[in-house]
Amino acid sequence: MSDPDKGRLLLRNVVVLDGTMMKARTADVAVENGKITAVEEAGELLAAGEVFDGKGKTALLPGFVNAHTHCAMTLLRGLGEERPLMEWLKERIWPVEACLDGEAVRWGTLLAVLEMASTGTTCFGDMYFFMDDVARAASETGMRCGLCRGLIGDDEEKIREAFALADDWDGFEGRFRVQIGPHAPYTVDPVALKRLASLASERRLGVHLHWLETEWERDYFRTELKREPLELLEKTGLFDVPRLSLAHGVWIDESDFKALARDNVTVLHNPSSNMKLGSGIAPVSEMLAAGIHVALGTDGAASNNRLDLWQEMRTAALLAKVSRRDPTILTAREALRMATVEGARTLGFDDVGLIRKEWQADFALVDLDRPHYTGWDRENLISFLVYAGSSADVVGTLVQGRWIQRGGHFSFDDGKIRAEALRCRKNLVS
Amino acid sequence: MSDPDKGRLLLRNVVVLDGTMMKARTADVAVENGKITAVEEAGELLAAGEVFDGKGKTALLPGFVNAHTHCAMTLLRGLGEERPLMEWLKERIWPVEACLDGEAVRWGTLLAVLEMASTGTTCFGDMYFFMDDVARAASETGMRCGLCRGLIGDDEEKIREAFALADDWDGFEGRFRVQIGPHAPYTVDPVALKRLASLASERRLGVHLHWLETEWERDYFRTELKREPLELLEKTGLFDVPRLSLAHGVWIDESDFKALARDNVTVLHNPSSNMKLGSGIAPVSEMLAAGIHVALGTDGAASNNRLDLWQEMRTAALLAKVSRRDPTILTAREALRMATVEGARTLGFDDVGLIRKEWQADFALVDLDRPHYTGWDRENLISFLVYAGSSADVVGTLVQGRWIQRGGHFSFDDGKIRAEALRCRKNLVS
Repeated sequence: MSDPDKGRLLLRNVVVLDGTMMKARTADVAVENGKITAVEEAGELLAAGEVFDGKGKTALLPGFVNAHTHCAMTLLRGLGEERPLMEWLKERIWPVEACLDGEAVRWGTLLAVLEMASTGTTCFGDMYFFMDDVARAASETGMRCGLCRGLIGDDEEKIREAFALADDWDGFEGRFRVQIGPHAPYTVDPVALKRLASLASERRLGVHLHWLETEWERDYFRTELKREPLELLEKTGLFDVPRLSLAHGVWIDESDFKALARDNVTVLHNPSSNMKLGSGIAPVSEMLAAGIHVALGTDGAASNNRLDLWQEMRTAALLAKVSRRDPTILTAREALRMATVEGARTLGFDDVGLIRKEWQADFALVDLDRPHYTGWDRENLISFLVYAGSSADVVGTLVQGRWIQRGGHFSFDDGKIRAEALRCRKNLVS
Repeated sequence: MSDPDKGRLLLRNVVVLDGTMMKARTADVAVENGKITAVEEAGELLAAGEVFDGKGKTALLPGFVNAHTHCAMTLLRGLGEERPLMEWLKERIWPVEACLDGEAVRWGTLLAVLEMASTGTTCFGDMYFFMDDVARAASETGMRCGLCRGLIGDDEEKIREAFALADDWDGFEGRFRVQIGPHAPYTVDPVALKRLASLASERRLGVHLHWLETEWERDYFRTELKREPLELLEKTGLFDVPRLSLAHGVWIDESDFKALARDNVTVLHNPSSNMKLGSGIAPVSEMLAAGIHVALGTDGAASNNRLDLWQEMRTAALLAKVSRRDPTILTAREALRMATVEGARTLGFDDVGLIRKEWQADFALVDLDRPHYTGWDRENLISFLVYAGSSADVVGTLVQGRWIQRGGHFSFDDGKIRAEALRCRKNLVS
């Protein structure tokens, strides 16, 4: 006889907040088979299976979604700091990346998952190579992800690899989605982009690409491609793929905002990376006002250098305010939406990122019983979290109702991951 | 007979780094009677008194110095979020501040000290009122501080209070310095400023004031004071006080940089607060290039909303880079200097902020045995710390060789502080 309580979890007396709510509420949340089955007044639900008692001072947030990263770049962290962008890439990053193999990517990815799990991230969107190794590594941890093989040029072998990744992993255990990942318009020409867009649409796959990260890229459209960015999206069919994720978007022109406000398009904002590399400030509050979907990412650990969505949430809010000298824009609630439900959506998860019946049980548990939360209440909790909180307050991370991290302990062998990642790094860098 | 080991501490196998060093080194550091007595190759020093073993994976940094804050504003955190600046001040902050009493300031200050101690800060520069209560509170915790009574107008009673604070507390246990704190040039007229500057110089006290935080303040000089900022500093004698701490300096004009590059002048940069209030971006890298001393502060918890110097260090570096679109400026080393020795210096502590023989034993201990430090070495440690690290890595905070915080445990009653601060907040806010 099977255990009727298997896969059941009751989160009691937790302070529930997500990007749809302005006010928090204390509630009981029931989970069964990876999904939320009930959200009721505290005390209403009977215990079944495992019980976690939040005692009215543990917040239940949707897990953070890191919509744009290159996980295995954890192995390259700290290389060539504070150099000009192209020198950094050409002299420090690309030569080391050329030496990466599947094993290094595996352990670098696992190190990234470890860092993300410890800071409340439950889903990430990865663009890199040796993606089969990435997928296998992620599958062992229980983490949710969107994966794409970064494509440069129109190498048939790599394109086959990109679609084989979808054959093998798209839909895996309800946690994996696969995107097609042309690197950028300056590394993949319009003809190849058109073919990839067409194949992606045929297969009902999303497309994830770098988009106008630097001013140089904007100029590239004019001087090399001889067309405007919007025109490229239209002419190649990228505008018509099921989900189009445009990473960075720092140099998107205001005149394009209206056209980009589409249900299937999301800009992936990476504020720390854009700041650290000196790329510029994406016009996020204006994009939001125009109705554009915006999600958050860390970018790789070599240009951030953290993999901490909470930090991105705070940074996004503060950077928008100072860039327009207006403290009223990019609110805490908008930042929380960008860090959760918006990222999940563009990676192909339509039931991830809110605390809602029938949605996936992906959570970050946050300890509110700490000095900097003194004075929090239902109405102000969201501002306490976004502005005063940090990922150091995360005491649990759950994906599909399973603990990935609890009190600093992981569902996978974190010691081995750290040792193997260090070994791989030393092989690469020394 | 007195215990010969009393007040002696040996920090063994710690990874030493401060703002003078590019490369870290593993060393033994001996402390006696609150001062560093030796920094030697690991293994060179004999144990005497208490021994802490860093095992080659605990970094010893100078404790952070929060050069500009209003501690008791922890009680006002989260009030009136995301409102325009003057509306926020007039409708939410000032009415509550008008109800503060010495007891509330006491507990609000202690809450701030608790937060700072937990994040590796060992010294703070506080401008507020009921400063005698602030001083008594701080004295109980063992924390180092610079204190000034914020002055508005030319109320004789308050000015007497400001100098009485110096009589009572300047030099206290080698940990306290007192400054004179005219609030700002738009709240204290030039005649009063001149008198305060003269009295401060006579008493050999520093002056700490708000300076060009907003564009409105810059305009105030032209439209109301009918003189340029630099002229005011010269004519009032503020330029000649022993130490002049100019908080914010967002709107300092480039043409004034040369004149501000003086040994006795320091700009206190508060990047998070300036961002969150939408005040603007201080031209920090240009000021540093011009030879101006710059230190870091959090400002009050109502406009940050954290009291975390590590966050300010990272934010300062990233904000400078993006504001000039140049990844090479405001280096990790400059950020670490600003967060430590530069703050100490302007608050009047000439032997605080470096790991050096005969200097004060004020430290932050940082656990490097964490996933995001994988791959650190002597050469890259500073970038790992500033860009990948966070205050969550702080495992110990010492002032004058005494543990203020160790592994999340405090040398004072943190539970009582939190309970009393919450009680005071409820009285004020509900």
